[in-house]
This record gives sequence, structure tokens and C-alpha cells, in this order.
Amino acid sequence: MRPNDRTPQQTRPIKFTRNFTCHAEGSVLVEFGDTKVICTASVEESVPRFLKGKGQGWVTAEYSMLPRATHTRGGREAARGKQGGRTLEIQRLIARALRACVDLNAMPDISITLDCDVIQADGGTRTASISGACVALADAINGLVAQGKLKKNPMKFMIAAVSVGIVGEDPLCDLEYVEDSAAETDMNVVLTEHGDIIEVQGTAEGEPFSFAQLDQLLELAKGGIDAIVVEQKKALED
Amino acid sequence: MRPNDRTPQQTRPIKFTRNFTCHAEGSVLVEFGDTKVICTASVEESVPRFLKGKGQGWVTAEYSMLPRATHTRGGREAARGKQGGRTLEIQRLIARALRACVDLNAMPDISITLDCDVIQADGGTRTASISGACVALADAINGLVAQGKLKKNPMKFMIAAVSVGIVGEDPLCDLEYVEDSAAETDMNVVLTEHGDIIEVQGTAEGEPFSFAQLDQLLELAKGGIDAIVVEQKKALED
Amino acid sequence: MRPNDRTPQQTRPIKFTRNFTCHAEGSVLVEFGDTKVICTASVEESVPRFLKGKGQGWVTAEYSMLPRATHTRGGREAARGKQGGRTLEIQRLIARALRACVDLNAMPDISITLDCDVIQADGGTRTASISGACVALADAINGLVAQGKLKKNPMKFMIAAVSVGIVGEDPLCDLEYVEDSAAETDMNVVLTEHGDIIEVQGTAEGEPFSFAQLDQLLELAKGGIDAIVVEQKKALED
Amino acid sequence: MRPNDRTPQQTRPIKFTRNFTCHAEGSVLVEFGDTKVICTASVEESVPRFLKGKGQGWVTAEYSMLPRATHTRGGREAARGKQGGRTLEIQRLIARALRACVDLNAMPDISITLDCDVIQADGGTRTASISGACVALADAINGLVAQGKLKKNPMKFMIAAVSVGIVGEDPLCDLEYVEDSAAETDMNVVLTEHGDIIEVQGTAEGEPFSFAQLDQLLELAKGGIDAIVVEQKKALED
Amino acid sequence: MRPNDRTPQQTRPIKFTRNFTCHAEGSVLVEFGDTKVICTASVEESVPRFLKGKGQGWVTAEYSMLPRATHTRGGREAARGKQGGRTLEIQRLIARALRACVDLNAMPDISITLDCDVIQADGGTRTASISGACVALADAINGLVAQGKLKKNPMKFMIAAVSVGIVGEDPLCDLEYVEDSAAETDMNVVLTEHGDIIEVQGTAEGEPFSFAQLDQLLELAKGGIDAIVVEQKKALED
Amino acid sequence: MRPNDRTPQQTRPIKFTRNFTCHAEGSVLVEFGDTKVICTASVEESVPRFLKGKGQGWVTAEYSMLPRATHTRGGREAARGKQGGRTLEIQRLIARALRACVDLNAMPDISITLDCDVIQADGGTRTASISGACVALADAINGLVAQGKLKKNPMKFMIAAVSVGIVGEDPLCDLEYVEDSAAETDMNVVLTEHGDIIEVQGTAEGEPFSFAQLDQLLELAKGGIDAIVVEQKKALED
Repeated sequence: MRPNDRTPQQTRPIKFTRNFTCHAEGSVLVEFGDTKVICTASVEESVPRFLKGKGQGWVTAEYSMLPRATHTRGGREAARGKQGGRTLEIQRLIARALRACVDLNAMPDISITLDCDVIQADGGTRTASISGACVALADAINGLVAQGKLKKNPMKFMIAAVSVGIVGEDPLCDLEYVEDSAAETDMNVVLTEHGDIIEVQGTAEGEPFSFAQLDQLLELAKGGIDAIVVEQKKALED
Repeated sequence: MRPNDRTPQQTRPIKFTRNFTCHAEGSVLVEFGDTKVICTASVEESVPRFLKGKGQGWVTAEYSMLPRATHTRGGREAARGKQGGRTLEIQRLIARALRACVDLNAMPDISITLDCDVIQADGGTRTASISGACVALADAINGLVAQGKLKKNPMKFMIAAVSVGIVGEDPLCDLEYVEDSAAETDMNVVLTEHGDIIEVQGTAEGEPFSFAQLDQLLELAKGGIDAIVVEQKKALED
Repeated sequence: MRPNDRTPQQTRPIKFTRNFTCHAEGSVLVEFGDTKVICTASVEESVPRFLKGKGQGWVTAEYSMLPRATHTRGGREAARGKQGGRTLEIQRLIARALRACVDLNAMPDISITLDCDVIQADGGTRTASISGACVALADAINGLVAQGKLKKNPMKFMIAAVSVGIVGEDPLCDLEYVEDSAAETDMNVVLTEHGDIIEVQGTAEGEPFSFAQLDQLLELAKGGIDAIVVEQKKALED
Repeated sequence: MRPNDRTPQQTRPIKFTRNFTCHAEGSVLVEFGDTKVICTASVEESVPRFLKGKGQGWVTAEYSMLPRATHTRGGREAARGKQGGRTLEIQRLIARALRACVDLNAMPDISITLDCDVIQADGGTRTASISGACVALADAINGLVAQGKLKKNPMKFMIAAVSVGIVGEDPLCDLEYVEDSAAETDMNVVLTEHGDIIEVQGTAEGEPFSFAQLDQLLELAKGGIDAIVVEQKKALED
Repeated sequence: MRPNDRTPQQTRPIKFTRNFTCHAEGSVLVEFGDTKVICTASVEESVPRFLKGKGQGWVTAEYSMLPRATHTRGGREAARGKQGGRTLEIQRLIARALRACVDLNAMPDISITLDCDVIQADGGTRTASISGACVALADAINGLVAQGKLKKNPMKFMIAAVSVGIVGEDPLCDLEYVEDSAAETDMNVVLTEHGDIIEVQGTAEGEPFSFAQLDQLLELAKGGIDAIVVEQKKALED
Repeated sequence: MRPNDRTPQQTRPIKFTRNFTCHAEGSVLVEFGDTKVICTASVEESVPRFLKGKGQGWVTAEYSMLPRATHTRGGREAARGKQGGRTLEIQRLIARALRACVDLNAMPDISITLDCDVIQADGGTRTASISGACVALADAINGLVAQGKLKKNPMKFMIAAVSVGIVGEDPLCDLEYVEDSAAETDMNVVLTEHGDIIEVQGTAEGEPFSFAQLDQLLELAKGGIDAIVVEQKKALED
């Protein structure tokens, strides 16, 4: 049995707290069980140099962990003088995923930066970040529409993400840390609210896995993401 | 009149939430009004190279702001590849102050790192950090004593800090952002729970100030710190 | 029709030239059409600090492009003072994939570094790198076995990789640059010689894609990788 | 008794040598006993980006020690690739202090950089730097006035700085290295020539200190600074 | 006797392969025996900031070794975060030498970057780089002339370079690695095709050398460079 | 005629001031006319990692310019976060030259670092640095011999350096800045006190130069260096 009596299909308790901090245009504390991430969306009325004069907008992301978000303290990247490969890989994934859910041509000369800062980690920080950032992005965009800075809402659909994996021989949804570190296979899946694929990243940590196992994992992910989207929408309606 | 009807002597509402995150040996969310800082104390059973074999311990600190802790987004220091001068200056101050309240010889081969991460800023982030870090440090040390890893408690006294300043012609205690940015003089004071001085840093932002004004500001600081220490102790008793 | 009259299932001409340079324990020039990568395997009889005394070995990788491997010159990362996120993401993928095909416990205190330097780029540099690095790794390991430095061969299977994607509405195998830059969906697949999955990374560059399309792409990848493995084995037999 | 038979109130021999090097608009060798600092003021007829078009000027500072200014050689910051926290803290203090003594609105589009390079250190390098930089700044500004580039002199007053501290139980003025390293309390004070406060930074290195001791130290500093200002003026009259 | 029965005057087999890669305006694989360098010339129709509006062009160079170009793997400079002193020294030499053979005023607003990437090293990488870069530069410039982007050919003469040295007591031309590492004196000479000096750098690695020995080495270099120029011209005529 | 009525053969006034600063084992202010460099020699009783246990010593060097040593202020390398190519090239030259004049096997486990910090620049800073560093090195080594830390003096000979060049058509010795910036050819020569060559670096800044001109320049350098060695010895005898 899984910790906290979860079934293989079940996610941890999912919670989105909007307006968690006061300055950002979108600010969400997302909790996937004990994993907690502050996701803020910051709006700027300008675009990076490579987009100047092209009449489109931009969405980007940055990711970080507080040094003691984890069991043992990790060195602070600012002090070491560079972001690690894992950090860059994750923030590129977050940015790519969130860019996929807006029509950049419908937000001319607007940039939105999504900052995902993990304050407590228990597995699945990147999937929690994507799910929380999507809510923060929706808040920021809704604000721009309400202020008349955007004529129509550029958001095409909500997205959410979950990790799935094979532990022992069991496919499990939304791995927490103890499961994640024992997994043979680890997969992060980002889907739209309609169940289409934005990104799939599956890795054999131990033994290689089969096409059939991949399909099984994708089905598990689909179920988990449906549950997360329900919570996202509930939060946005409050 | 000050925002929120504060008197010149009054601090903002002060709150210390212990065990704010779950992994660190000490973890405190400190709030000075809208300024909110996560302070964690991380224990390691080793010391930096320059202390190896000397039979003493070490206390150090790191400080950072989440990019959107402020009104406009600041660049992430990890992405820029270095910590700014302001960050280094503040974390040196925090480390020095906390080192002053322990007997390093009474904690052989133990290092404690205090991480102060500002999640929301409204003035006084460094004084909130010092005040919160002291509570996190107390928790970490009490834990080491309880586990028998320290024979006697090396903490000499609690410390707390507050900012004071002259706005217009009025000396004010615990400046919030709108006051801070209008101040002629800005002073950060760190005192022990007994009212002795650990650190005083006063700067003429506008006109130079007199010795008499300095004394006035110190008296204000003393009152503010007394109030903060009351809250620290209340939190530690819970 | 595709450039060079390729069918959707067909890879570009694949070629592995062993002993391309003379100093490395394994040195392979891999060509996927006009994409050309020098892959070297360097053996060291020591392991990184975190593995000292654990009786196991290590495999890692680094990736780079010569500045003018591409249509327009890209800045040299050494001159800019850091490796970009794309570079780090790719070299982490290469390292993970190659680590999966050896039993690290069977190569105690041996480290092998795979350097993949792209001298000419026309799409698919990361999949060519993985496929070429596997041949270089095999050469280096065979050398260690021949010299008696390894008692038994720690290699579990060969791996190869290919990119697949949807261009317009057509699923295509082994995208070259003009196809890659027009793709709606881009997927990199790493399989063992037996067709099991080591890594799958699929991204919706344009519209989201369906589970059915994912399966279609995986089948295409499987066919392409079979063809690449044939060439790897042919090269190793020479 | 102090080294060289100084009384507690006495500074070391103070000397300002103007025109020490030939290219800078102001160039002063300042000596506080064996502490020797080259202070140059460099004028540029432009301002940093954040001041463009605001019709004001700027004053900034940089500080460094030659590697062998001290008893044992310190690593060169340029070789290490970053300035240390102590360096940044000191140069921020120097810049802030010198900015306080000019009316930036009266020097439109003029920037002055004060470089303080310690060639020999024996305690008090930051206070010597501030005192010497003020003379170099005066020279540079007088030059700008003489050339008609400034209509009126923007300098509001001279400033000078001294360190004071408690060694054993004795408050002492202008600590040299052997005193500084034994001090319980260390304080750097920057005053105007009229005795008003620009900056006060006091730190308990050993035991906390009292408000009464702070006042005592400030009085000592005032006397020392009076003596330094006399030497500054004498030098400027030559 | 030298390896491969070379006479003291003889260079190793010299070979220039043009159009080695397909994207660059000039792309040459140069081989001096087992030393192999890819030299590309990249044209940009703009100039660095310090030349804007001056009506002239620019030529610059970058140099690097693949990590396993050498007997033992060297750390990748991009991963270490900076180019080493040796690299910078060599690329400054290459740039200076190539700049000397064009009339920068005759190529207004055109920049050419020469990238020299050593794929296999056996001594003399900098002289091979200069010799190969000159051919790549000629190709790029001929292309600009053919496209009508340059009215007249700005190239003043071909240049080539060779290393010479004293091993034991014997002056030798074009040292390979085993000779180079045993040399008492090491000299790199860059001459025009007419035998005039562009750069001479001679260093006593062991004992100092005499003016007479310097003259002897220069004569050797002259002979070697004559032979290299013959190969350059042959390659350009193909 | 040259500035200050110098003949083509004449160096500027040369002056070596020993014990210029008080902490270093050797400390020399060297002046070549208006070029002034502080050269210190710092002794450490240990060697870099790559020499541990080999029973030999080490000599290295670092070079820097104060930001305002020149006509216009140059950015501080420590603030920019890296040493420039020119700096690295020069300090490698200084280190190589000084290493050539000691027997490293006769100074086991002793490292000497030569820091050359230019406080005022008027051409020839690298040759002044080498000449001054040699005196500082002699002082440091004599001290080690006097203290019995070295059994015999490892210094093989004194060295000195001078720049020579062709301005217009005139070969000139010891170029000052106005000459240097007009030179067609620029050459730095390092000789032993006996006139043997340690290093020659000649560059055609404008037109290529002939073998005959090279010989002429070397003769000029020899005369200049003889004059500098006389001053070095005079200084060491004081």
C-alpha cells in the first residue's frame, strides 16, 4: 500500500491558494501533498529584444528551490554563481508548457514571467510548478483583460501536469519523494484540460520499459490530471 | 499620521510561525506587517575548512528575495550569476548578529546555516530576517540539546532587530516601505533581549543628522525591540 | 515528398566511422545525413568524489556545437562563460541514456566521459550524439576488457536514438533541419537494441497532440532505431 | 599604552599627498600611519543608464586591496572572478558617504568614480579611503568648476571618517591592525566637517556594548575626525 | 633522427581540405601531420560597437581544443566557465596575425570571425590554426568579392606559420608533440608569403639562447613556411 | 627628436625603490619614466597541487592595472568578473620569464608569487614589471637564504626587459605611450644580465618587417637592457 493509503490512481491532496503574496499580478501557493511551491506571474509591458517589433508577446519561467526545501540543505545557486543543469532543464520545461497554452500573437508587447519557487519539496516539484503556474498565469491574464490591456483573452486552454512512475512493478500516479527515489521508471506528463499532450518525458531510471507500460502510465497520468484540473477550476472560481 | 494609525513608537503587527516548513531543524515564518520572511536553520555536523580541528562551531547566514517579493520583479541572482552587493551586505550582517548570540566554543564541530528568504517585502526585510532567524536558531539548538548532541545550550541571549528612521522631521520605529523610501535617515539596530547593542548601522539618506537625533532613534529602537522580543518568547513557549 | 525523396519511415544515410581521432579510448564520427558529430569516450581510472569507496563506476557526457556548425554562427559558450540551458539539457540526456546501458557495479572505479562535439548540424544532433556515443562507449569498454582492467563486460545492450515528429499532418522519422523547424510536434526517442524504452521526450511545438499520435510516432521511432542499430553493429564488426 | 605612545584620543599621523598619479582628475595618496591608499577621482561626462535624461549627476566608488597589502597574501579578486562580500560592503559605504557630500542636481550629466586601492594595510582602510576620496573628489570638482563645466560648486561640505573601538575596556580612536584584531567593539564613523553624522556602523565583535559606550565612542570619533579635517584642508590649500 | 625520418628542415605532411563543413563562408581542415584543426571563417555584415560608423571592417578569431584532442582529456572550458590563459593568448595571436593580412579599410562594415577548433593535437596547433585560417579567410573574402559585396579584394598577402625549436642542440622545424615537450627553446613564427615577419614569439623553456641561435631558427622557419605556402596555394587553386 | 630629447638608443630614466611597502618579502617600485609599477614577491612554504611531493619549488606572477593608471578609466577586472586576455597574456609572460632565472629544484616546497600592479602607465608596463619583479624576487630569495630556509641561492642570473619598436622608419628603444601607439612594429625582449635571450615577442602592428629590422631591434634591446641591469644591481647593493 502507498503512504497515506493512496490508491495507485490517486493524487495527493491538491490545493491552490490564490493571492498568496500581494505584489504579483498572479500569485498562487500550490500544494501537492507536502510539496509546496509559490508560483507568481509578473507582467511587463515590453518584450525581449528578439521579439521587438514583431507584434507578439512572450511567456517565460524561472524555477528554484529554497536551499532547505529538501531533507538536507542544498547549496544556494546564487551563491555558487550559476544555475544547475536540473534547474535549467525544469524551467525550460515550465516555460515551454505555459507558452503552449497561450496565443502569443494575441498579447502584443506583453511579457509574463512565471517564477516557481519551491519552499518545501516532497517529489513532483516540476509538475506542481506547472499546475500552479497555469493558475497564476490565468489570474495575470484575466487582470490584463479586465484592465483593457488585452482585447481578447489569449489563453487557449488550461494545462496541468503530474508525475507517474513504476515502483517495483506497480504503476503509480503523483509520486511522492519516497516513491520517486525507488522508481524504476519516472515520467512527467503535461496535458491540456481536454486530455491532449503538451509534453511527455519518460526515463528509465532502472530497467528499460515497454511500449505497453508507457501506455499504462499515460492513462494513469490522464486520470491524475483530470483531478488536478478540477481543483484549478474550483480555485479560479472562488 | 502613519499608515494603519501607528504611533511613531509602534511596530507593525509582529508574528512568528514556527515549523513553517518540515525539513529544517528550525523553520520560522516571520511577519513584520506585510514583510514576510521564511527563516530556516540547517544543522550540519561538520565545520568549514578554516575551523577544522579547532574544537569550535560555526553560524552563518544567507539572504535572498524571491524575484517578485517586491512591487516590480527583480532579476533572479542565480540567473544573473552573482549575488548583488546589497544581498551580500545583508547576509553578512545577519550572520554576524546571530554569531554574536552563541558561544561557538560550546558547539564543537556543529555548523548552523540560517537561510532568510523574503517571500513578500514591505520594508525592514533585514531586521525581520534577524529577528526570525534568532527563533529558528533557538529551535535548532534546542533540538541539538534534546538529542544530546550538545552538552549545554550555547545560546547566550536572544537578539532582535528593528529599523528606525527620520521621516520629514519625525523619528519613527519599524519603517514600512512607503516610509522607508521617504526617510532622511535610516538606521538598523540589533539589540540583545537585555537591551545591549550588537550592531548599529545608521545612514544619512538625505541630510546629515545630529548626535541628539541618533540617541532619539536608539531609544525608539529599544522600545520596538522590547516588543519584538516579547513575541519571540511567546512563540518559543507555544 | 521529403527532401532527398525519403519515405516518412526512412532515416537519412547513417554512418559510423570508428577511430576518427587517435587519442581517445573510443572515437567515432557519426553522420545522420548532414549532421556530423565527433563522439569520444575517455577512460579514467578514478571516480567522482560522490562515488569514492563505493566500488562502482561512472559514465557521464558533455555536448557542444562548434560555433559555425549551424547556418549562422552561434556564440562560443566558453567565451560567454557558461553553458546554455539547451546544452545542459542535452548533455544530461546523453549521460542518462548511456548510463542506462551499462552495469555501473561491474566497472568499479572506472569513469568514462563521452564528449559529443557537433561539427556540422542539420537537425537531430542529440539523437546522433547518443547513437554515436554508444559505439564509442562500446569501443572503450572492449578495450578495458581486452586489457584485463574489467573482468566482465558491463555493457547490458546497445542503445540508439532518433527524432520523430509531425510536420503538417505527417508523422516523419529522423527530421532534418528544414523539417524540424516546421514540426508541430517533436519527439526524441532512445531505445535499446531490443526495442525497450530508455527515454521518451515529446513536445507540442505547435498544437497539442493525441495519445494516438504519440503511439504512431513511437512506432516510427522503433523502425528508425532498428535501422540505426544495424549500422552500429556493422561498424563494430569492422 | 598604545603602540607609538599614542593617547586613546590620538589618531595616527595623517597625510594627504595630492597629484600622486598623473592621469586622474583627482589623485591622492592618503596615509593613516602605515595604512596607505591611492584614491583617484575619474570624471566622465555621461551618467549611468538609470539616470539618463534626469538632469543629475552621479558619484560612485570602487575599493580593492593589492594582494600583498596585508601580512599574508590574499587572493586577487580579479583572478577569483568575483569581488568578495567585504569588498562590496566597503565600496558601497564609500560611495554612499561621498554621494552625501555633493548636490547631485548641481552636476548634471557628470559622473565621478572614486577608486580606492589599498597598497599597504594596517587597519582602518575604509576610513582612510573615505577621507582620501573626499580630497580627490574636491580636486576633481574644483577642476570641473575651473574649466567651466560646472556652473557652481556642488560640494556641500567635506567629510572624513575614522574607526573607533573598545580594546580591553579602553575606548580608542583610529585603531591600527593589532588593536583592531583585539577589539571587543569596532565602529566606523563618517562625519561632515561640521560634526554631523553621515554614517555610523558599530559592531560587537566580542561582548555586546551599552548605549553609554556608544556615546563615548562617538565622542572619540568626533575628535579624531576634527584632526583629519584639519589635514584635509591643509592639503587642499597647498 | 626525427620521428618519421624527417630532416631538421622538413615540415610534417601538410594538407588543407577546403569546404570541410558546409555552412561557413570558409571551412578548412588543416593537417600538420597528426595535428588537425577545423578552421571556419564566418562573415557578418556588421561590425563590433567600437567600429560602428568608422567605415572599416574587422577580423577576429577564437581558438579551442576538443576535450579529447590530447593524450589525456582536458576539462571543457565552457563547463569550467572561462577560457584559460593559454587559449586567450593563442586566439589573440591568431586574430592579430590574420588582421595583418587584410586592409580593414577595404572591407567596410564586414566582420569575419575565424574559429579554430583543434580536433586532434600533436604539437603546433597554433601555427596550423593560423595557416588554415588564412585559407578559410581567403575563401570567405573571395566569396564576398564574387557576390559583389566587396569592390576589391582586401587581402594583402597570404600568411603562414610554423613552430621551430632547439631540441638537445638541434634546431628543428615544425615540432611535433614529443619534440615540443623536450625542447629547450620554442619559437612560433608567422611570415607573409614573401618572407616578411608578422609575428615572432620565442621562449627559452630550458636554457637561454643566443642571438645566433635565434637567427638559425628564423631561417628554419622561413624554409618551413615556404613549403606551407605552396600547399595553401595548391589548395586554393583546386 | 623623441620626447625629452632621448636618443633612439636611450631608455627613459630607470629607478628601482626597494622596500616600497612593508609586508612583502620583496617589494619594489619600478619606474621607467612615467610608468610606475609596484612589484611584490610573496613567499609561501608550500607548492601548488600539481607539484606536491616532487621536491621542487614554484614561481608565478599576477599582473593588473589600477583602473585609473591610464588616460581614461578602464573597468576594474574584479568587478567585471574576469581577467582580460591582455592581462592573462602579460602575467603568463612575466611568470615564464621569472621562472627561467631560478633553479626550481633548488627551492623545494617554496612558492613565490610576483604581483605586478601598475599604478601609472606610460607604455612598457610589462617590461617594467619583469625588470622590477626580478629585483623583488632577488630580495625574497636573499631573505630565504639569510633565514636558512634555502641552503644555496637558486637564482641563476638577473633578467631585465625592454620594449623596442619601429616608429615611422626609426628603430627606438623603450617606447613611451605616444611612441608605442604610433609604432609599426612592437617588440618586447627579455634578456639575462649576460645578454642571452629569455623571450622575444615581436609583432607587426602596421606593415610586416624584415629579418634585418628584427636584428636591428634586438641590438637596440640589448643596449637598453644593459642599462637597466646596471640600475637593478645598483639598487640591490644599497
